[in-house]
Amino acid sequence: MIAEQMKGFVKNSSAIRAMFEEGKKMAAVYGAENVYDFSLGNPNVPAPEKVRQEAVRMLQEDDPVVLHGYMNNSGYEEVREKISNFLNKTHGTNFRKENILMTVGAAGGLNVILKTLLNPGDEVIVFAPYFGEYRSYAANYGGELVVVPPNTADFQPDLASFEKLISPKTKAVIVNTPNNPTGVVYSEETIQKMADIMRRKQQEYGTDICLISDEPYRELAYDGVQVPYLTKYYENTVVGYSFSKSLSLPGERIGYLVIPDEMKDSEDVIAAANVANRILGFVNAPSLFQKVAAECLEEHTDLEYYNRNRETLYKGLTEAGYECVRPEGAFYLFVKSPVEDEKIFCETAKKHRILIVPGSSFDCPGYVRIAYCVSYETIVNALPGFAEVIRELKG
Amino acid sequence: MIAEQMKGFVKNSSAIRAMFEEGKKMAAVYGAENVYDFSLGNPNVPAPEKVRQEAVRMLQEDDPVVLHGYMNNSGYEEVREKISNFLNKTHGTNFRKENILMTVGAAGGLNVILKTLLNPGDEVIVFAPYFGEYRSYAANYGGELVVVPPNTADFQPDLASFEKLISPKTKAVIVNTPNNPTGVVYSEETIQKMADIMRRKQQEYGTDICLISDEPYRELAYDGVQVPYLTKYYENTVVGYSFSKSLSLPGERIGYLVIPDEMKDSEDVIAAANVANRILGFVNAPSLFQKVAAECLEEHTDLEYYNRNRETLYKGLTEAGYECVRPEGAFYLFVKSPVEDEKIFCETAKKHRILIVPGSSFDCPGYVRIAYCVSYETIVNALPGFAEVIRELKG
Repeated sequence: MIAEQMKGFVKNSSAIRAMFEEGKKMAAVYGAENVYDFSLGNPNVPAPEKVRQEAVRMLQEDDPVVLHGYMNNSGYEEVREKISNFLNKTHGTNFRKENILMTVGAAGGLNVILKTLLNPGDEVIVFAPYFGEYRSYAANYGGELVVVPPNTADFQPDLASFEKLISPKTKAVIVNTPNNPTGVVYSEETIQKMADIMRRKQQEYGTDICLISDEPYRELAYDGVQVPYLTKYYENTVVGYSFSKSLSLPGERIGYLVIPDEMKDSEDVIAAANVANRILGFVNAPSLFQKVAAECLEEHTDLEYYNRNRETLYKGLTEAGYECVRPEGAFYLFVKSPVEDEKIFCETAKKHRILIVPGSSFDCPGYVRIAYCVSYETIVNALPGFAEVIRELKG
Repeated sequence: MIAEQMKGFVKNSSAIRAMFEEGKKMAAVYGAENVYDFSLGNPNVPAPEKVRQEAVRMLQEDDPVVLHGYMNNSGYEEVREKISNFLNKTHGTNFRKENILMTVGAAGGLNVILKTLLNPGDEVIVFAPYFGEYRSYAANYGGELVVVPPNTADFQPDLASFEKLISPKTKAVIVNTPNNPTGVVYSEETIQKMADIMRRKQQEYGTDICLISDEPYRELAYDGVQVPYLTKYYENTVVGYSFSKSLSLPGERIGYLVIPDEMKDSEDVIAAANVANRILGFVNAPSLFQKVAAECLEEHTDLEYYNRNRETLYKGLTEAGYECVRPEGAFYLFVKSPVEDEKIFCETAKKHRILIVPGSSFDCPGYVRIAYCVSYETIVNALPGFAEVIRELKG
């Protein structure tokens, strides 16, 4: 009954999601406190109190016909106005409300912009390790993923390989910084060089290459690290943002795209993205949370909570003998497997009721992703298990 | 910059949505009370009070990490359990929670099931007049729309033509009852005959044909008319439901798919639809409103409000000389244009600040759709304009 393409998608279906389901089953057997589930980027810091206050206030005071009704497919105008003003104030940009398109999370936004841009056979460049769903998102519109091999020295992108992999068929480049799964933030120098390469290649081939910045982790940067705003470095940039992590609202599916005026054919792209948002079946971003998010732009998640987890986990694991790049952002550690096949590492960890995701899911075998958006106790209590695992594997 | 396919989509972009935007502009010029906007199916009956109460209670009492967090891509298990129980009680079906997949509205659900089923070149049969977005939804996955011509006598489907148009490439048939744009409810006899034809054709061709029942208007039926539950008549049926109209929550994007065990390869279809929901970028239906909807399954919209609109508009228009099938459901009247080219009718109406949608948008020229989910005053105040329009056009 099902489509041929879907058979492949089902077979390669998210190992992360499978583990999330397995974690729930293990928790039912062993008790939730005895399962150390580091598999999913599901924030465990609650949404800021203002989210609750604003949502309740709107439900009690606003006209429900407007609050829960249809609006322009791009979102409420006053919401888009507030977001563009906030971005301009924060990043010194020059956006108007027309540059903002409210989306069903960043995943919805990425699908909207890829639907808008891709012709079948177009190439989409990603940097390993990368969020595995990008492969499906590109394939949805007939795009071919082209993977820049990982630079395991520091997980900044390998720009020499990048330049070689750009072809006349390259339509889009997806970057994700702070990065899932490494936690690395791309430096301003990296971004400038990347922009130079893309401009040069556009000129060489007479093509348009769109840089898509997938940035659900923008607000999660530690040690005062700056995360460059990419539209300022390269004209053909589209930003996909999500409030999933910054406001701890992943289930509510609320985010936006920024399509700047500086982009080639920007009016056409904006109009087409609006249509794509509708015909893909999103229709519009959820209405109540559009309005709630617009009132909470200045709110912050509890970064200190994640930071304590980061410090404790990084210290505990490196002391136990694990190798790992110290992450500057997001809530992931990308740890080198003590044995070559990281799936053996994951299986061994599972025996100690520790759930971690193999790097193969991010096209970077030999590593694992540990999501530390969990309780502090989970980290403290899992560390002895991690120490036992490396002893078992190293003999 | 934009994809070739999108250029076509933008060009043929929804006349309904364009009119919605035009209506807002006209309201700014003439005052909202002087513009009679019948263009969009945006309920003007507020959500039931229980929606507000449950949403506020959950925001105040529930753990925000769970309330706004990720869950299984198919939705919260307890939500799916409640919906399956409700359906079983109401329709005498035998669904389990596994048969329910929570979606981003019915539009999201239709995209999920079409992505799940369609191979490029597969045919999708629809009955004119039909919701114009079906064409885009099918095209998203390489499907070809095959249109059964309208039966303008009573707008029940033309089953003789239907049978002739089923081919070995037919993968899906979309029905929408109560119907947008006609308001007609397909009778049990119609459904039984349709099911017989599909079973016969499946056997003749050795194929599987999926009946997709798009039913956001299920609860909007007048005069005690029964709306048959289609899974009971034909095995390969998938239901796409939405709370947009029944709970007046169109902006919140909340609905579900029902994929029954009776369906061929149902386990595969359920698994693939779960993956499709994720990789299309929906990820999951909005979390708070999943839970709110599950607590409001027994709630009803104010049907008497719509019914008064229906009676008044139908009576007013037919007395003025318009021809129209009396609608039994939804909140639309599908009126014969006084002149052959209904776009002239729409333009003339616009001069009287009346916004109505040409039947061409539903592949049924010569008619117009009038959405009566508006205030009663709008209907009463627009009727003299409608009377003037027909006088002008008929001379």
